[in-house]
Amino acid sequence: MKPQRFAVTPGEPAGIGPDLCLLLASQPQPHPLIAITSRDLLLERAAQLGVAVNLLDVAPGNWPDLPAPAGSLYVWDTPLAAKVVAGQLNKANAAFVLQTLTRAGQGCIDGDFAGMITAPVHKGVINESGIAFSGHTEFLAELTHTEQVVMMLATRGLRVALVTTHLPLREIADAITVERVERVTRILHADLQHKFGIAQPRILVCGLNPHAGEGGHLGHEEIDIIEPTLERLRQEGMDLRGPLPADTLFTPKYLEHCDAVLAMYHDQGLPVLKYKGFGAAVNVTLGLPIIRTSVDHGTALDLAGSGKIDTGSLHVALETAYQMAETRI
Amino acid sequence: MKPQRFAVTPGEPAGIGPDLCLLLASQPQPHPLIAITSRDLLLERAAQLGVAVNLLDVAPGNWPDLPAPAGSLYVWDTPLAAKVVAGQLNKANAAFVLQTLTRAGQGCIDGDFAGMITAPVHKGVINESGIAFSGHTEFLAELTHTEQVVMMLATRGLRVALVTTHLPLREIADAITVERVERVTRILHADLQHKFGIAQPRILVCGLNPHAGEGGHLGHEEIDIIEPTLERLRQEGMDLRGPLPADTLFTPKYLEHCDAVLAMYHDQGLPVLKYKGFGAAVNVTLGLPIIRTSVDHGTALDLAGSGKIDTGSLHVALETAYQMAETRI
Repeated sequence: MKPQRFAVTPGEPAGIGPDLCLLLASQPQPHPLIAITSRDLLLERAAQLGVAVNLLDVAPGNWPDLPAPAGSLYVWDTPLAAKVVAGQLNKANAAFVLQTLTRAGQGCIDGDFAGMITAPVHKGVINESGIAFSGHTEFLAELTHTEQVVMMLATRGLRVALVTTHLPLREIADAITVERVERVTRILHADLQHKFGIAQPRILVCGLNPHAGEGGHLGHEEIDIIEPTLERLRQEGMDLRGPLPADTLFTPKYLEHCDAVLAMYHDQGLPVLKYKGFGAAVNVTLGLPIIRTSVDHGTALDLAGSGKIDTGSLHVALETAYQMAETRI
Repeated sequence: MKPQRFAVTPGEPAGIGPDLCLLLASQPQPHPLIAITSRDLLLERAAQLGVAVNLLDVAPGNWPDLPAPAGSLYVWDTPLAAKVVAGQLNKANAAFVLQTLTRAGQGCIDGDFAGMITAPVHKGVINESGIAFSGHTEFLAELTHTEQVVMMLATRGLRVALVTTHLPLREIADAITVERVERVTRILHADLQHKFGIAQPRILVCGLNPHAGEGGHLGHEEIDIIEPTLERLRQEGMDLRGPLPADTLFTPKYLEHCDAVLAMYHDQGLPVLKYKGFGAAVNVTLGLPIIRTSVDHGTALDLAGSGKIDTGSLHVALETAYQMAETRI
């Protein structure tokens, strides 16, 4: 079997991303894991944290085949533009952040990496530097020429994908179109099969309105858009249940026998996921030709260098990427 | 101390409400509990279920001061218009359903009852009978001449109140006004003080948009409406936190130290509440001059008379009404 290497990008260098990479090194990994970041940054943050770490330089043409021993971390050195002070954003390093993502993403495309795991970036400081950037997901979609991606959050025992993501609430109803519901459902279904190895995925679909519209009394999108779209896809053999009221769908009776929930919007699906998976949730981008998982928390600038961080989400992000690469069809 | 009697209304007679009342009778209650329904209906359902119950007739002028012994149930006989078949809706009995609610509500107003607990009604069949009816809450608001009520769901360890309730998703953003946010927050705050005995309630408030608008990037209602309203109310001494993103608010870090969450809409707040409190959640109507709690499930027509029902929600509804009456200021 070909060695499966994974890339990890620490994201915002002044945040907790570098700390997370260093904490990773303290535990043996089942696969070679390569941090794409500045060697100097890691050494400085390690000194600040009082962590002993042995950095092993790697680069294209010189990839490792075996996991690094515990206490060691593979690094593909990627130079910063300016020295980093933990907790202090600096727009001079915005291009560096994007370069780490490009290296990881292109490495996945080229087959050097089986997948990439991303720590959080700070969108604001990248945009302030003059580079238009709306997030990891959009950046990787562009890099891989992917028209539509789907955001899914997962924790042990629950996966929630979203039809719409970061839209003001008042724009959501108009964004629920036959085309979008169909495209997102197809991507979710295909990726559950091909990236998660589930032969016949069962998907529970939320309605848009409270009580899933209550037969038209509380909105018509279920009748006009969601139900006919699901029915058409069911004809193709997909196991789709719904549209169901979001406040009854997220109960054991329904969740026990499903592989994923498809919510119509962010705050309909994610509060339960994060309540259930607090500190151990992972963000998976579906629809990409590559495997990408991400922690579900922010840059936590105030905790960088403090040693007071929780690696729970990162562990689930790694675990999920490994599983996806292993079960990928 | 004056005896505190409570009224229970079984709602739709063809549903599981009568079954719930009968199951109640098997356990001793701390207070006199009076089922307002048809004596004959209870006897027939008891025979169907194979439950032995001793019905004790009560009526205005003849109220009990002590709880009924286990195996007995107080009944204020309220005649049906047509014989009930479990599981079969009959619009002939719609007026009966409303009469039980009127008796319970008026009894609370008159001080005969310390509170009322309602089992589910079937809105559809009441409306089909020619009586306009949009729900318990609205009915009781009218009966008590209350302009604004607030829907709150509660389970052990979590209370969630809603700024808007049964609105199509596309109408929600326009319904989030300064006036409404202020009115609902005031009612929630006052009822937590006066009906739940919490001297200084701490309330966590959700934003309307994902990430609570992310500083205006994902919607402006937080900046234009919610935040200034909360700030004004804070000046009066209310302990209000937010607006917070719904997907981070519902995590232990925040929930541990709060008395209630105020969500902007139904599917933002209720999925987590029902996930956490599955089968043991209760609906409390705030803002009324009376105490009213309700089970959070439906009429379950298919389970009426089957014996396969869960009394978890009813027990929490009773427990909550008792607590409210005891701590009421």
